[in-house]
Amino acid sequence: MKKLRGEIMNNKFYGIGVGVGDPEEITIKAINTLKKLDVVILPEAKKDDGSVAYEIAKQYMKEDVEKIFVEFPMLKSLEDRENARKENTKIVQKLLDEGKNVGFLTIGDTMTYSTYVYILEHLPEKYLVETVPGVSSFVDMASRFNFPLMIGDETLKVVSLNKKTNIEFELENNDNIVFMKVSRNFENLKQALIKTGNIDKIIMVSNCGKENQKVYYDIKDLTEDDIPYFTTLIVKKGGFKKWRKFNI
Amino acid sequence: MKKLRGEIMNNKFYGIGVGVGDPEEITIKAINTLKKLDVVILPEAKKDDGSVAYEIAKQYMKEDVEKIFVEFPMLKSLEDRENARKENTKIVQKLLDEGKNVGFLTIGDTMTYSTYVYILEHLPEKYLVETVPGVSSFVDMASRFNFPLMIGDETLKVVSLNKKTNIEFELENNDNIVFMKVSRNFENLKQALIKTGNIDKIIMVSNCGKENQKVYYDIKDLTEDDIPYFTTLIVKKGGFKKWRKFNI
Repeated sequence: MKKLRGEIMNNKFYGIGVGVGDPEEITIKAINTLKKLDVVILPEAKKDDGSVAYEIAKQYMKEDVEKIFVEFPMLKSLEDRENARKENTKIVQKLLDEGKNVGFLTIGDTMTYSTYVYILEHLPEKYLVETVPGVSSFVDMASRFNFPLMIGDETLKVVSLNKKTNIEFELENNDNIVFMKVSRNFENLKQALIKTGNIDKIIMVSNCGKENQKVYYDIKDLTEDDIPYFTTLIVKKGGFKKWRKFNI
Repeated sequence: MKKLRGEIMNNKFYGIGVGVGDPEEITIKAINTLKKLDVVILPEAKKDDGSVAYEIAKQYMKEDVEKIFVEFPMLKSLEDRENARKENTKIVQKLLDEGKNVGFLTIGDTMTYSTYVYILEHLPEKYLVETVPGVSSFVDMASRFNFPLMIGDETLKVVSLNKKTNIEFELENNDNIVFMKVSRNFENLKQALIKTGNIDKIIMVSNCGKENQKVYYDIKDLTEDDIPYFTTLIVKKGGFKKWRKFNI
């Protein structure tokens, strides 16, 4: 297969993680890859995602790079979502068949809850693919607020919070828990944290790294209405207080 | 506190993640931070760690940067380990008191199983601290081999495998599981993967990104003796086969 691919083409489909928003938090590899692109695919599913990634990336790309916005609509039926993904993949395929280097930008990391993988899933294997990782949101958050994600032999669980999440179970069976998309089930999360004695062992950050960033160590008085879409809550069962000392 | 700190000093203790080994996989922020350092602390606990990080970082640092190697010995008693950490922290403190910018290099990410946090833990809060994240080993691995860590609403669990890990429980209760330090309990991991029907849903990589990197999708014939220290195994309960197509 390797030889066959090389004979036919050497242009590639690139997935590129650009970090969570700090323009300095991009890797040299991502920058060098952005320079190669003829076309850049900008996903428009999650609010702001595409535009934030583009704002970080544009200074590194060719001036005449072709921009294509694709939508990954949040449709109710899986079949409809799958069809939309297949259509988007066809757009990428057509560009690759023209011999172009095509890039797909992702905020954070390319392989952590990104829409990039839906293209990979449907793209035939004859194409060349290269993925460039980035610093994902929870990794960034730990450094930004100077606390370890895990220390020694501790475990870490990452959960995209939703109505089906068994929150108490997760709190019981993991040393550190990252709850992403907290707004989707905030009330139950708060109650479970209180019930299990973990309410004071948390940090919650909305719009991490952005101008409207908000940090909470106490969420007892907050309600679902107070929580923006991009909100992550991290529980450290070993306690959070001792890690707060450097956060000025 | 903020004001007090600013009045006394403005030099900082920096934790810097430099990625897992690919010299391009370092962020602009890490590079800009390395340029500020007067002293660099190089941990010597895990084999190769300090030297790999230094090899990546040295091209960005001042020529006359002071290098200090500190040891985090793997002592049996927690008290002895704690004492060693406190002694190392005193070394950092002394340098900070002299007004120097002190950096601590970490392979991968600063907040993911690093020794940097042991200094943070013991350092008095009067010092200024800034942590620069990096791409951690499992994040790098997913991009390198073109598979998602999590997709849709899937969960991810990261486990530093040891003799106490309840492997079957982890396999049952998570969608994706990252087992790091596989060599510490390989036989039981292999048996649990077979027993739970997950033996064909894995990727295992030794010395990821290094010259002696090895990749396995089939570990049935391997024994504990075949597994180097830096080995990570990732289980995707949804199956791994469809993600192998681009790995040439």
